[in-house]
Amino acid sequence: MPLPRQVFIAVIGAGGVGKCFLSQLQHLASNLSRSPSAPTYLSLILLSTSKKSIYHADYKSLNNWDTELQASATSPLPLPQLVEYLVKAPGKVVLVDNTSNQEIADTYPTFLKKGISIVTPNKKAFSSTYQLWTDIFSAAANGTGGGGYVFHESSVGAGLPVISTLKELVETGDEVRKIEGVFSGTMSFLFNSFQPVNGGGGKFSAEVKIAKEKGFTEPDPRDDLNGLDVARKLTILARLAGLKVESPTSFPVQSLIPKELESCSSGDEFLSRLPEFDGQMDELKAAAEKEGKVVRFVGSVDVPKGEVKVGLEKFDKSHPIAALKGSDNIIAFYTKRYGDNPLIIQGAGAGGEVTAMGVTGDLVKILSLLQ
Amino acid sequence: MPLPRQVFIAVIGAGGVGKCFLSQLQHLASNLSRSPSAPTYLSLILLSTSKKSIYHADYKSLNNWDTELQASATSPLPLPQLVEYLVKAPGKVVLVDNTSNQEIADTYPTFLKKGISIVTPNKKAFSSTYQLWTDIFSAAANGTGGGGYVFHESSVGAGLPVISTLKELVETGDEVRKIEGVFSGTMSFLFNSFQPVNGGGGKFSAEVKIAKEKGFTEPDPRDDLNGLDVARKLTILARLAGLKVESPTSFPVQSLIPKELESCSSGDEFLSRLPEFDGQMDELKAAAEKEGKVVRFVGSVDVPKGEVKVGLEKFDKSHPIAALKGSDNIIAFYTKRYGDNPLIIQGAGAGGEVTAMGVTGDLVKILSLLQ
Repeated sequence: MPLPRQVFIAVIGAGGVGKCFLSQLQHLASNLSRSPSAPTYLSLILLSTSKKSIYHADYKSLNNWDTELQASATSPLPLPQLVEYLVKAPGKVVLVDNTSNQEIADTYPTFLKKGISIVTPNKKAFSSTYQLWTDIFSAAANGTGGGGYVFHESSVGAGLPVISTLKELVETGDEVRKIEGVFSGTMSFLFNSFQPVNGGGGKFSAEVKIAKEKGFTEPDPRDDLNGLDVARKLTILARLAGLKVESPTSFPVQSLIPKELESCSSGDEFLSRLPEFDGQMDELKAAAEKEGKVVRFVGSVDVPKGEVKVGLEKFDKSHPIAALKGSDNIIAFYTKRYGDNPLIIQGAGAGGEVTAMGVTGDLVKILSLLQ
Repeated sequence: MPLPRQVFIAVIGAGGVGKCFLSQLQHLASNLSRSPSAPTYLSLILLSTSKKSIYHADYKSLNNWDTELQASATSPLPLPQLVEYLVKAPGKVVLVDNTSNQEIADTYPTFLKKGISIVTPNKKAFSSTYQLWTDIFSAAANGTGGGGYVFHESSVGAGLPVISTLKELVETGDEVRKIEGVFSGTMSFLFNSFQPVNGGGGKFSAEVKIAKEKGFTEPDPRDDLNGLDVARKLTILARLAGLKVESPTSFPVQSLIPKELESCSSGDEFLSRLPEFDGQMDELKAAAEKEGKVVRFVGSVDVPKGEVKVGLEKFDKSHPIAALKGSDNIIAFYTKRYGDNPLIIQGAGAGGEVTAMGVTGDLVKILSLLQ
C-alpha cells in the first residue's frame, strides 16, 4: 500500500490489551520503516494511563515508553487539552483508545471532527446511546462525515473478523436475517464446563469460582453474569445490521445474578451465596438434557423482526454453538446468500493478544486510507 | 469513506459469478450515487465474454448491458488492445476479472503497472508460477509497487473472509503455524454424504453422480476429483503465509481419480467405470470407522515445516472438519495467539452469489483506497 511517510500515534490505556498493543505496534512500526520502496514511520507521541502520562511538547517520539512511563510524574491530560495537543501535531494522528472509559468514548466525535482517526476495542463508544453512535459516524470519514476514520473490530469478538464481515455483507447488498452466537469468553467457559456435550460438568457456582481463579471473569464476576457485556456487543451488531437500537438496556437481557443476590455488597459475598441457587441451574440443565440439548448463554439479532435478545437458550448437541470449546466465541450470520448453513466465525474472543490484534489490524487499515 | 467522484469498471466474464457480480454492482452503484455528502458514480464501460464484448469508444456507460450484450456482434478485444482502451479512460479504472482464464491472469502485471486496479476470483493468477505471483505484487500498490491495487478474496473460500484474515494475522505479527480445512464445496458434499458423522452414506461413485446432477461438480467431475482446485487454493494460502511455493504441483496432491481411469476419453466413460473402485473407497471408510473417525478430503499448510499437502485424512467425529454440513467449506488457522483452539471460518465456499460477494467486497475496498 502507498502509505504516508509519518503518522503520529497516541495511546490511552496500558493494561492487558494496551501492553499487547504497544508490543504489536513496535513490531508493525519496525516492519513499515524497513519497506524499501515506501517506508512509513509510526511515532508514538503520547501514552496515557488513568494515573499518569508521557508526551513531549515538541512531539518527539517516545522510544522507551516502558521506563519513561514508570518514571513519569505527569498526570493524564484532561480530554480538551488532549484534543488540542493531538490537533497541533505536525501530521496525521491516530488515537488508540485501549480503555473501556465512557468519558473518552463521549469525546470521539470531537476527535473525529478535528481529523484525528480512532481505533479502539472500547465497546462503550458504540453501545451507549444511539445519539453517540450517530455523532461518531456522522463525524467520521467512514461514516458520512469528512473527519478522521474510526474502526472498532475488537469491540465484538476481539480479533475475530466479526464487524468487518458484517459490514461487507451489508455493503455488498446481502440480506442479513439473523445473527446468533456466544459473545462472551466467560459465558462460553462457564456453560461449556457446566454442561459439556458429552455429559458431566460441575455445579454452576463451582464453575464460576474456577472461571474467576483462571482469570476468565472480571474481578467481580457479577460484571459478566449480568449479561451487560453481551448486550453491548449485540447492540453494536444490531446497529451495523441496520436496527436503531437505543441502548443495551432497551431489549430483553437475562441476568444470571439471582434476584436475591442483587443486593450483595461485594463479589465475595455474592460468590459465597451463589451455591444456594445451584438447584435452579441444575433444573435447567436436566430439562435441556431431557430434550437431548444443552444450555448456553447466547445473544441474537432477528433483523426482519427488529428483535435483539440475550440470555439462556437450549441447543441440540450437534449444533455448532453446543460444540464450542474452552472460552471460544462463535458468531453465526444467517443471510439470504448463505441460505440454511450460516457463515460462521469461531475462536478466542477475549484476551490481550487477540484483542490487540484487532486494534493493530484496524490501525493498518487506517494507515492505508491516510494517503 | 471519502470516495472519488467517478470510477470506471470493466468486467470480463458474464457466467455464473459474472452475472451475480453485475447485479451486485448495480446495487452498489445505486447506493454510492445516492450518498448525500460524497456521491460516487461507478460507470460500467466494458463487458466482455469469451465470445463477444460491448464498450464505447467514448467510454459512455453501459446501462443496459444485458440487452446490449445479447445484441452485440463485437468480438472481445485482444488483451493488448484492452489494456490500451482502459489506460485511456478519463479516470481511475478497476478491472473485474470473473473468469478462470490463464492468459488474462498472465496480463495482470501489465494492467497493474499502468495503474489499473484488479479484483478477481481467478485462482490461476495467484497459484501458477511463483514468478507470476511476484510480478503481480511487485507491480501492485498493495505489494511493493506503485501501480493499481489487486484484491482476490474470492480465490479461496468464495466470499468467506479467508484471505483478509490470513493477511491480518501476518501483518499484525501473529505466528501462523498451520492452516487446515476443507476448501472445495464439491469435496465437502461428496464426503459429508459418503460418510456422515452419524453413520450411513452411499457408495462413492453414487455420491459423485448425485453431486454432478445437483450441479456441485464441474461439467467433467474429474476436474474436481484430481485435487488441483484445492491445490491451487493451498498454494495461495501458503504463499500469503510466507512460503515460496513454486506451483500447485510442487507438493503432494492426492487425486481421487483411480490410475486405471486416467485414460478415460470422457467424463461419462469415467463415471460409468467409477463403481469398479467403490470397494477401495469402502475399505477407507471402514478403516476410519474402526477408529471412530471419518474420512475427509482436506488441504493443509504446516508453516514452520514449509509443508503443503492435499488429500484424504481421517478426523475424529467430534472434530469441526468432520461435522461440516452440505457443501460448506471450513478453514482453521492455528496461530501462536489463538493457541490450541484455532480461529475458524466456515460457510458456503462456492456459488455465484457468495463468490461475487467477495469480488464486490474487494471492489468496495479499492474504492476507498482510490481517493
